[in-house]
Amino acid sequence: MATTSHILEGQWRRPDAQQHRFDELSLWTDLARRLEAAKFDAMFFADVVGLYGNYRGNWDIFATEGLQIPSHDPSVMISALGAVTEHLGLAWTSSVIQEHPFTFARRAATLDHLTDGRTGWNIVTSALENAHRNYGLPGLTPHDERYRWADEYVDVVYKLLEGSWEDDALLRNKSGSHANPAGIHKIHHEGPRYSVEGPHLVAPSAQRTPVLFQAGTSPAGMAFAARNAEAVFMFAGSPGSARKVTTTVRSLAVEHGRRPADVLFFAGLSFVVGSTEAEARRRKADYDEYLSVDGLAAHMLGGMGVDLGDAPVDTPLKDLKVEGGRGVLEAVIDSVPGGNPTIEDMVRYRAERMRLAGTPEQIADELERWQDAGVDGINIINHVIPGSYAEVIEGLLPELRRRGLAQTEYPQGTFRDKLFADVAEHHGRLNPRHPAAAYRGAFRNAPR
Amino acid sequence: MATTSHILEGQWRRPDAQQHRFDELSLWTDLARRLEAAKFDAMFFADVVGLYGNYRGNWDIFATEGLQIPSHDPSVMISALGAVTEHLGLAWTSSVIQEHPFTFARRAATLDHLTDGRTGWNIVTSALENAHRNYGLPGLTPHDERYRWADEYVDVVYKLLEGSWEDDALLRNKSGSHANPAGIHKIHHEGPRYSVEGPHLVAPSAQRTPVLFQAGTSPAGMAFAARNAEAVFMFAGSPGSARKVTTTVRSLAVEHGRRPADVLFFAGLSFVVGSTEAEARRRKADYDEYLSVDGLAAHMLGGMGVDLGDAPVDTPLKDLKVEGGRGVLEAVIDSVPGGNPTIEDMVRYRAERMRLAGTPEQIADELERWQDAGVDGINIINHVIPGSYAEVIEGLLPELRRRGLAQTEYPQGTFRDKLFADVAEHHGRLNPRHPAAAYRGAFRNAPR
Repeated sequence: MATTSHILEGQWRRPDAQQHRFDELSLWTDLARRLEAAKFDAMFFADVVGLYGNYRGNWDIFATEGLQIPSHDPSVMISALGAVTEHLGLAWTSSVIQEHPFTFARRAATLDHLTDGRTGWNIVTSALENAHRNYGLPGLTPHDERYRWADEYVDVVYKLLEGSWEDDALLRNKSGSHANPAGIHKIHHEGPRYSVEGPHLVAPSAQRTPVLFQAGTSPAGMAFAARNAEAVFMFAGSPGSARKVTTTVRSLAVEHGRRPADVLFFAGLSFVVGSTEAEARRRKADYDEYLSVDGLAAHMLGGMGVDLGDAPVDTPLKDLKVEGGRGVLEAVIDSVPGGNPTIEDMVRYRAERMRLAGTPEQIADELERWQDAGVDGINIINHVIPGSYAEVIEGLLPELRRRGLAQTEYPQGTFRDKLFADVAEHHGRLNPRHPAAAYRGAFRNAPR
Repeated sequence: MATTSHILEGQWRRPDAQQHRFDELSLWTDLARRLEAAKFDAMFFADVVGLYGNYRGNWDIFATEGLQIPSHDPSVMISALGAVTEHLGLAWTSSVIQEHPFTFARRAATLDHLTDGRTGWNIVTSALENAHRNYGLPGLTPHDERYRWADEYVDVVYKLLEGSWEDDALLRNKSGSHANPAGIHKIHHEGPRYSVEGPHLVAPSAQRTPVLFQAGTSPAGMAFAARNAEAVFMFAGSPGSARKVTTTVRSLAVEHGRRPADVLFFAGLSFVVGSTEAEARRRKADYDEYLSVDGLAAHMLGGMGVDLGDAPVDTPLKDLKVEGGRGVLEAVIDSVPGGNPTIEDMVRYRAERMRLAGTPEQIADELERWQDAGVDGINIINHVIPGSYAEVIEGLLPELRRRGLAQTEYPQGTFRDKLFADVAEHHGRLNPRHPAAAYRGAFRNAPR
């Protein structure tokens, strides 16, 4: 995320951390080059468009911890990142509340052209109340209503990207026509939130639609993913929890006429690699010292709409007096082992569950268990930029490659071709089982 | 404009024309490098978000002529252009109808950071009916209402960019706070169209607000420019017409408490340079052969909402039967010399009036007359990319430099510092007479 403190709060204070330079293009172009040299699939930017909920009565901590504020718009960095790389996928988050779908479709299509088909879009609905109040809404739009909103939003985007232009409409014939008018269609979308005439202003790019990502494992989120996502970002504390998500979403996808392999899963994990177990433990203890307990608690509870008030971090969760968030909190209490967890126990356990620490062999063994749970890849959560990526590249990738768990060359083609290299049918485009494919040719007889 | 045929329709068919490669980043990065080497102030992208109005009963001609469709989103190219240049200003058009001001302000601020203060924003309201129908509106929002919309839109943007963060709020102190919460303010904007809580998600960039451009010389447009614009793009057929605009807008600006020199004017002109008059004439005749009369007519009349029906291009304008557009057409008839102009006469005369053809000395003489009319610079309309820029750089700039009419080195600092190099007070920021400056410190006591 183009911010100082994304997930592992406090780590930006380490001397080797460079993420506080999020506003310098070179931080990201250097990282993109490094990831491509190591044959990473993609560089992915998370994003939010507002503050997390209050913590201890105000939002001061988000400023003092650099916790996702400032945060920069990732979409405008993509062309520069594309210019310094050739194979790396470039994915970013854009919420349905932040941008009209006509504008989003044009922007995404422009970027897919500029990168020769290397874009990915993480579709989100924004779960932060302040974000909704930045966009004229009285408060947080209810969860299921947000997914209905997203359903219509992606529908407009699909119509524009897949249905408005025929593949052969653009000719650029200097002795004749620039384009064939009969191959360009208005879409005349009319729905509860949007009315969009079209035509789309961009001719088909290599992928037409960016690779579609989704994050979030609520029932509505999984239903949305099952229908729309080609890849899901997930946080699961263990291979067992991961398996529940991968099997649920894949069964739902099959109900929608898709195949299990049509949806890839990327688990969010962080790595601490040591040449010995003892070294890994020492390094982890060093990271732990920098963890901001209040920062993690603010991120976690602010995201749930729970304010701690003035309770110290050694307060047992069961003693917290909170409005509204009681149910969520009970679930958290049950999930932390050992009984009667404090606020600090909760956040340290949470950080623990997203980290794999050990020798390369130990971590690779563990990753095999994640793979067995239906997980296709890892979305690396960094402690530090660029160090955490260097740690994986130098410490872990050689072992993963030895086991055939990490690619040594890029497959040919677009980002989509690379991700689904074993499925030859794509040719850069969404497969015919995806709902967007229904719009191909759908507007040939639409009123002009 | 990131499109094949922007203004001088038909020229893309020339063998030397490369603008049909608008979808390749290298066309633009190469051009940006070339412009910077020649010390151009800026590279500016025009934009539209919809089709021009029907021509001869349909919109086929826009496809066949490549007339602003496809057109790509310029804002996402800026970071890549910034990465290959160091001094060149980078300005783009964004309409109030296409993007929420909270999103726009964040995007613009991100780009101002990434380019170290080299951004410019051309504020437009979209005059094309199809554009409004792409954004959920039943048809073209009336002209004056569009400017009221723009008034509120820029107000939100100013509040976010100028008022939400104090200059010293961002600390990035690894031993302490990332930012000072007391220096970050919500803006609580409540207006007819927008309700925006804030805070802005981006800390102050070198310019805070991009250099503000405006185009359009209607009374409402000039009033908007007088209040908000630091630079105006204008099309004027002659220095005399230009003088009317520059003096009117500057007097209005003074009424708003600004100074005449607070508003710069850039006239849209095209150049045909020859080492002799005869050569310039030959080259101009060659360009004229490629001019698409129907394309120019469609652009001009489609922009006025006048459809020709099946009238051939040698039809006198006075014989056209048009609904609604009669008044506009009468004004056009009066403006074309010679009496009783045909459609073709009209468009050729219009193209004529945006071109200066001659030897470098003749063109420089003419540009001195434009300068005397209060025009500060030229927005070059190209026949061909990149050839038209090479023609100016190699053919015309040496003579302009000899006369002190073109810069030989870049002034220090941001885009704003460079444009207003004779006004030392800016330090990259809007001057205190600009309405946005009123929001500095305005939210210090706003509810948190």
